[in-house]
Amino acid sequence: MTEVYISGLAYDTVTNAPVVLLKEHDCLRVLPIWIGLNEASVIAMELSGMSYKRPLTHDLLKSVLNGFDAVIQKIVISSLKDNTFYAKFYIISSGNSIFEIDARPSDSIAMALKMKAPIYVSEDLNSSFIQLSPPSDDDPKSNDEDFDPMDLKNRLRNIKPEDFGDFNL
Amino acid sequence: MTEVYISGLAYDTVTNAPVVLLKEHDCLRVLPIWIGLNEASVIAMELSGMSYKRPLTHDLLKSVLNGFDAVIQKIVISSLKDNTFYAKFYIISSGNSIFEIDARPSDSIAMALKMKAPIYVSEDLNSSFIQLSPPSDDDPKSNDEDFDPMDLKNRLRNIKPEDFGDFNL
Repeated sequence: MTEVYISGLAYDTVTNAPVVLLKEHDCLRVLPIWIGLNEASVIAMELSGMSYKRPLTHDLLKSVLNGFDAVIQKIVISSLKDNTFYAKFYIISSGNSIFEIDARPSDSIAMALKMKAPIYVSEDLNSSFIQLSPPSDDDPKSNDEDFDPMDLKNRLRNIKPEDFGDFNL
Repeated sequence: MTEVYISGLAYDTVTNAPVVLLKEHDCLRVLPIWIGLNEASVIAMELSGMSYKRPLTHDLLKSVLNGFDAVIQKIVISSLKDNTFYAKFYIISSGNSIFEIDARPSDSIAMALKMKAPIYVSEDLNSSFIQLSPPSDDDPKSNDEDFDPMDLKNRLRNIKPEDFGDFNL
């Protein structure tokens, strides 16, 4: 499995759907996953540190997990079937037992952000990553620190959603 | 506390927001609560018995509760503050302890439907109910069995959302 982090969100104007970008640490590979507007909004708010006055559905799930003194051990983007990405959600209970839950990547990523859990991608999905160009010596800005997820948008224009898994709504 | 059931959903074209209608058993009082589009969609799907191929966020919450062998004892629409309705969510763990979670009415109602839990309204909210007209002898259709929540839509046109609690988004 490869650990990834949320590099950012993009908006695919061709499919009118948000895309969450999962980037490998110390690597130039990105896994784009098309998600629903509502989940993208939750992820964007979490990335920006904003919150609503009242708990949204993912906050409710966090409250339930806290109520059981449970934590999310990790979430795993596990497979791609019929153009849809699947994810698994691993919960550690207060008694240290672990159980696995089938989930959409979007919900899993939102919860990983909310509960500071690591995100992994299964090796089965290696071919779904996009290889970015290596940094150029002529361009001092082209290094990992300056990676702008929005720069990826034009690349995404030329890629069909079904190449990666479409609309995990 | 008063037990209610979901009489239906309406759409308020003035505020462009869905309204969930909670009706008292054997009574002609309805509590309308303005909710978000996403939660209305979940409630509508649950009422119609439809489901998506992949688990939505409320399904994920149900899976987590099932994973802990927990059930929802009840949900309570508990108060109205600053034009926003508040709800509480009572969970019974496998060890029979009960804990309470702060939630929005929309999420609570969606989960009550998914997990077949009863819905109550606090007595503090008595003044937020709408009293419907009693059935008329001249109109054989005007009885409780034939109650159509959409008939309430015109009444809702003349009521300001802030009279009941607006946009529990």
